[in-house]
Amino acid sequence: MKYSQRMSGLKASEIRELLKLIEKPEIISFAGGLPAPELFPVNEIKEVSRLILETEGEKALQYSTTEGYKPLREWIALRMNKRLGTFFDCDNILITHGSQQAIDLSGKVFIDKNDVVLCESPTYLAAINAFKAYECEFCEVPTDSEGMIISKLEETIKSHRRSKLVYVIPDFQNPTGRTWNLECRKLLAELSMKYEIIVLEDNPYGELRFEGEFLPSIKSFDNQGTVLCIGTFSKIFCPGYRIGWIAGDKEIIKKYVLVKQGTDLQCNTIAQMEISKFLELYDIDCHIEKIRVTYKNRRDIAIKTMENIFPKEALFTIPQGGLFSWVELPENIDTREVLKECLKKNVAFVPGGSFYPNGKHENTFRINFSYMQESKIIEGITRIGNILKEFIK
Amino acid sequence: MKYSQRMSGLKASEIRELLKLIEKPEIISFAGGLPAPELFPVNEIKEVSRLILETEGEKALQYSTTEGYKPLREWIALRMNKRLGTFFDCDNILITHGSQQAIDLSGKVFIDKNDVVLCESPTYLAAINAFKAYECEFCEVPTDSEGMIISKLEETIKSHRRSKLVYVIPDFQNPTGRTWNLECRKLLAELSMKYEIIVLEDNPYGELRFEGEFLPSIKSFDNQGTVLCIGTFSKIFCPGYRIGWIAGDKEIIKKYVLVKQGTDLQCNTIAQMEISKFLELYDIDCHIEKIRVTYKNRRDIAIKTMENIFPKEALFTIPQGGLFSWVELPENIDTREVLKECLKKNVAFVPGGSFYPNGKHENTFRINFSYMQESKIIEGITRIGNILKEFIK
Repeated sequence: MKYSQRMSGLKASEIRELLKLIEKPEIISFAGGLPAPELFPVNEIKEVSRLILETEGEKALQYSTTEGYKPLREWIALRMNKRLGTFFDCDNILITHGSQQAIDLSGKVFIDKNDVVLCESPTYLAAINAFKAYECEFCEVPTDSEGMIISKLEETIKSHRRSKLVYVIPDFQNPTGRTWNLECRKLLAELSMKYEIIVLEDNPYGELRFEGEFLPSIKSFDNQGTVLCIGTFSKIFCPGYRIGWIAGDKEIIKKYVLVKQGTDLQCNTIAQMEISKFLELYDIDCHIEKIRVTYKNRRDIAIKTMENIFPKEALFTIPQGGLFSWVELPENIDTREVLKECLKKNVAFVPGGSFYPNGKHENTFRINFSYMQESKIIEGITRIGNILKEFIK
Repeated sequence: MKYSQRMSGLKASEIRELLKLIEKPEIISFAGGLPAPELFPVNEIKEVSRLILETEGEKALQYSTTEGYKPLREWIALRMNKRLGTFFDCDNILITHGSQQAIDLSGKVFIDKNDVVLCESPTYLAAINAFKAYECEFCEVPTDSEGMIISKLEETIKSHRRSKLVYVIPDFQNPTGRTWNLECRKLLAELSMKYEIIVLEDNPYGELRFEGEFLPSIKSFDNQGTVLCIGTFSKIFCPGYRIGWIAGDKEIIKKYVLVKQGTDLQCNTIAQMEISKFLELYDIDCHIEKIRVTYKNRRDIAIKTMENIFPKEALFTIPQGGLFSWVELPENIDTREVLKECLKKNVAFVPGGSFYPNGKHENTFRINFSYMQESKIIEGITRIGNILKEFIK
């Protein structure tokens, strides 16, 4: 079969393949980026679903516009303005099939073959796969605990004529859990304007801050429209609905709408209406607070257990929010081998190599602390720690 | 802003733009491909939604596999085997975000820049836009009331080295309402195998046959895996859920799964589970029968009114099923001009030019007869007919 050339660059996501393996209930999984399902507002969703079908059933089940359900887009604009210091209205927002589609559509709108995508090192692995489908190249920009090293980014932009787009996750990054400082955000916005290079600011976890102050978005420093924001309901509501968004300059959003038309016409109508009704009837802040408290507690337990059990050669991040911590082992250790041993003990994580678009760094791995309940976190991290001691002697 | 090259080839779907204009309730619209909303099984959906959330809420709201919900894929495979003469099991099926996404993913999996897509003339306009995003060229193959002229198709394949994919809608085609005869289906399958060229057999309306025998699919004559089938719940259940599928050879479907991972991870979990529960608890055939009876009646009324009112120079198809009839006017008439007059009288259709990837044929238009209730069909077609008489003198 003669596939397109882009197919030769794609490989299955290690995480999604893992998720299949670890469906066994006895597995303690730190692998997926799964939210805690026991926190899903199931009863409230049952109620809004009933209400929508009872009062607007025909509309909810019919085709609707590509742009998305207007009351939902209005809520998103207001929320972003309040939280992230943006100045959006509903026409700045396109509803997407999860934030993953916002990434994919960004590739479609901006990337030609051999264009360069600049990203944190490491970065979100499904973004790598989304962009790869548009046959780009990747430059990983050195990144430390305060964010991307912007001077290095500028050097890279200058030295690569086809630098097209900078993809970043400034809050509780996936996979590292790191958060950019204010200065770094400001500098990236300035660079974006100076070089007229698109910045995609992906922010799936920003609402889930455990401590410290909320920081303004990169977008809030942009007055030329070169920064676009990606958001999602997956982590503050539920991922099963697949509702996310892209927000930005209205002219650019029109291009996204055009591209989404051909891609899948529109998002699920009833899912958009149900979320909107939920936001109208219930207190989302109260719901998010529940998630925050739970995840903070799980982070604390995970970190404390790592501190107690992991050999000191294993370095790990202590995230101020989100779902992930990131572990670095001595360079000679391959975490894919560690994982094999862990799976024998019914515990899983994601080896870190896949988060680097240009490979290497097999001595790293990602720990998700949102999904497993507290006792299992202690048990699972302890098992990993004991196996690590076998590898690091 | 520097967009990707593909953006220069894309334009807004005339239909989707029209749909915005005609949201006024006084408009009689034959424009969209909208199913009749009064037939949506709203109460049954309310019940399955309640059941799913009550018994499997956490699972329904969580992430799930890219492939899709297994019981739903199993149902689809069995249904296709029964209706279309295929030999599928669930691993031949990938759930997609409506059939539109199945078309888009096909572009991603198969089409490189400057590859040639061969299609009926005219063809489904959102498929044109989906493929265009992969920067292909189009060859329109002459098509008559019995299907594509296969000898012409073979000539075209031979004369275009980069012929990559044949896209067809053999049952009650969008936009013409035409249905391919058995011979034509068989010949296309044979050609597909002979030249190892992919055939995408899109079948959104096949279940909605008003009279005559169900015909076997093109796929049923394929024993080399070069034919892929696209299906959807939009026309037999409801479009708001955005659940469709692509079915084919298992190795090819694996490639689609890979591509869907990077595109949007997966479809809406709860939508898939609700449809599956509906299929388990209720009689879909009984539901489809209701749709068939209603649409047949609406077709009859539309056709009868056209016969009575349209000037004889206006030729139209009499479809054996589906949602559309196709009208051809004398060549000197531009239906975009006709539409302008019609909109003044609060009636709408889609001008035909956009259904031809390489343009021209502005003397054609598409009539949807599924959406409007009977009295409005008579009134609306009468208004169009009277305006046509002004144009054709």
